[in-house]
Amino acid sequence: MDFNRFFAEKLEGLVEAGNYRVFADLERKAGAFPKALRHREDGTTHEVTVWCSNDYLGMGQHPSVTSAMHEAIDKCGTGAGGTRNISGTNHYHVKLEEELADLHGKEDALIFTSGYVSNWAALGTLLTKIPNIICYTDALNHASMIEGIRHSRCEKRIFRHNDVAHLEELMAQDDPNAPKLVAFESVYSMDGDIAPIEEICDVADKFGALKYIDEVHAVGMYGPRGGGVAEREGIMHRLDVIEGTLGKAFGVMGGYITGSKNLIDFVRSFASGFIFSTALPPAVAAGATASIKHLKASRIEREAQKRNVAAVRAAFDKRGIPHMPNPSHIVPVMVGDAAKCKWISDILLEQHGIYVQPINYPTVPVGTERLRITPTPAHSPEDIAHLVSSLSELWSQCALARQVA
Amino acid sequence: MDFNRFFAEKLEGLVEAGNYRVFADLERKAGAFPKALRHREDGTTHEVTVWCSNDYLGMGQHPSVTSAMHEAIDKCGTGAGGTRNISGTNHYHVKLEEELADLHGKEDALIFTSGYVSNWAALGTLLTKIPNIICYTDALNHASMIEGIRHSRCEKRIFRHNDVAHLEELMAQDDPNAPKLVAFESVYSMDGDIAPIEEICDVADKFGALKYIDEVHAVGMYGPRGGGVAEREGIMHRLDVIEGTLGKAFGVMGGYITGSKNLIDFVRSFASGFIFSTALPPAVAAGATASIKHLKASRIEREAQKRNVAAVRAAFDKRGIPHMPNPSHIVPVMVGDAAKCKWISDILLEQHGIYVQPINYPTVPVGTERLRITPTPAHSPEDIAHLVSSLSELWSQCALARQVA
Repeated sequence: MDFNRFFAEKLEGLVEAGNYRVFADLERKAGAFPKALRHREDGTTHEVTVWCSNDYLGMGQHPSVTSAMHEAIDKCGTGAGGTRNISGTNHYHVKLEEELADLHGKEDALIFTSGYVSNWAALGTLLTKIPNIICYTDALNHASMIEGIRHSRCEKRIFRHNDVAHLEELMAQDDPNAPKLVAFESVYSMDGDIAPIEEICDVADKFGALKYIDEVHAVGMYGPRGGGVAEREGIMHRLDVIEGTLGKAFGVMGGYITGSKNLIDFVRSFASGFIFSTALPPAVAAGATASIKHLKASRIEREAQKRNVAAVRAAFDKRGIPHMPNPSHIVPVMVGDAAKCKWISDILLEQHGIYVQPINYPTVPVGTERLRITPTPAHSPEDIAHLVSSLSELWSQCALARQVA
Repeated sequence: MDFNRFFAEKLEGLVEAGNYRVFADLERKAGAFPKALRHREDGTTHEVTVWCSNDYLGMGQHPSVTSAMHEAIDKCGTGAGGTRNISGTNHYHVKLEEELADLHGKEDALIFTSGYVSNWAALGTLLTKIPNIICYTDALNHASMIEGIRHSRCEKRIFRHNDVAHLEELMAQDDPNAPKLVAFESVYSMDGDIAPIEEICDVADKFGALKYIDEVHAVGMYGPRGGGVAEREGIMHRLDVIEGTLGKAFGVMGGYITGSKNLIDFVRSFASGFIFSTALPPAVAAGATASIKHLKASRIEREAQKRNVAAVRAAFDKRGIPHMPNPSHIVPVMVGDAAKCKWISDILLEQHGIYVQPINYPTVPVGTERLRITPTPAHSPEDIAHLVSSLSELWSQCALARQVA
């Protein structure tokens, strides 16, 4: 077999379908977020304003986070030096896990190298090790949850997105004695909609199921201490597993789960993706801990983010630029055409110094291609005005429909 | 189902079998490696010498690595802020991938959040996407490779560890037209033995197979520029994929693959575990790049490591402490009894200030329980003398057999 030709052909297929990804080569500017320097392929650079960062609150440049990382590097060096079991557990990991358990009001927490691995490893382990368990999974769950479920090869039922009645219907059809787990997210990344967490818990409880929630797009941003949507709604205690990330609003990297002492110890003891991975650098754990601590006490960032989200939405409304309504911080501007979406993004980047990655199929369904905009507390009124006027200009050039607010 | 009782019973089972893992809570001391502060459960601390670190060369405290991380934090902040495709690619990632491609003499490279993910995602993607491919995998391959192969659900054949004749026998039995991939490691972590890379390549070539090597326990340490065992043997060009880690000899964290432009682009474009993960922090990439650059040019660390490995082995021989012979930097001291192995490790830690994690079943077969010792360039002659005399004392107390060198 000519492997090289095979790879080339598959890549060519992506290019032809408009799905080939080109990464924007950025240099973030600490202290000037959301500004960044973009490196072009020809070696030149220019300044851009990033409008699609998942560093939702700009904590990646917060002095308490950067100084915690500096301090930990000076104290402990750069890497953990091993897996958690073989010389890799650092006191900063222990402190971070305590901080996370406290954030979610749980007995214990476990950190992973990424949010992806935390979902994959935790769901994969629970669903593999609990005999005959049935998993009920929201149709729009993240790839990492899907892979964890797939890994386990357990029985699974996909319920329609955020459809509690459908979930109940599916659960009622199964053996009442079979162990069950319901897996869902709070804030869904691409549409920015939020799950009816309490109703899902009610149904899951009726059937004695474990409740597993992914709050990666919510932790740090929702709830009085940044515990997520479940904290805001006062129902963290109803969830068996709250999974989150340290790489979005907390501004660093890594993923985690929180839950009861035995559940966490069970995943810690059996999850291959946890056991056989080098632990996070102590400095990463230190930075994440500082970020969580800060966002537990400070609401400034969350309030400024809300104001900017509202300001961006209002400015889009004025110009008739259609954006999907939702109750979150994610503002999906609907283009509805893959080629135009890509073209607008390219022109925004090159000519207007605005960086928003186009989101096309297969990440979202055909016809719902979009620019996924994430206003942060650090975007200025001028940034917003520039984004909206630039986008409005291109909207006309593309002959895209406007929408009466 | 009473989930909590289920978890508790499974954990109890681990405790009874002697397989329950207790993590040593360490505070590494930058500048004093391999010394660390150990936190006991009661809150007290004491100094220990770490003898089981995978920071094999002590690069986790090297000034060029720590200063590169400090500089990148000051410049770019703490996190990448997104996946590689959505605002998360930083110029430090681009430079690191160039550095890695150069290290292994390949056209391109791709970094992942961990070595585990790099194996899982790369093998999982190649074996899923190439139709009807058959995977030939060494019996002692790492969990991350096994999981990647399992993920793909492709046809697989397990060849006896490092047994080239068995590999050839298996390959000859399969359809000559089926695409094939051979997956193996260079240095195996627990026995420290090294694969016959050239012979494996010869057989694989005979059948037109892709050759995938995991060099995580070799990069930085073998070869004139630290390119691994394949570099030392002048055969890097014969391998289609060289996989490695940034979290062991390079002292930071993350994993990577290197290969042809099309192969790397293929994995980049299709690997879920790559696409949907937040990128490594820019500072981690900067630290890793500095470490690779340093070890490309400097042989001091590699030579000092070799001297210390030889010194430890010679000192063990003098006392008749049995250690498994192998051509690598890993010194497995064979205890051969799970309870004694754990007991020796506990006493070394508490009474002698020496930290070596016991390696018991299921990581190694029953009867081959061991202390896996990794001498680094930073261990002093006094450290070595203290290790050997302490171990010798406990050897007598346990009435373990000595071995004539």
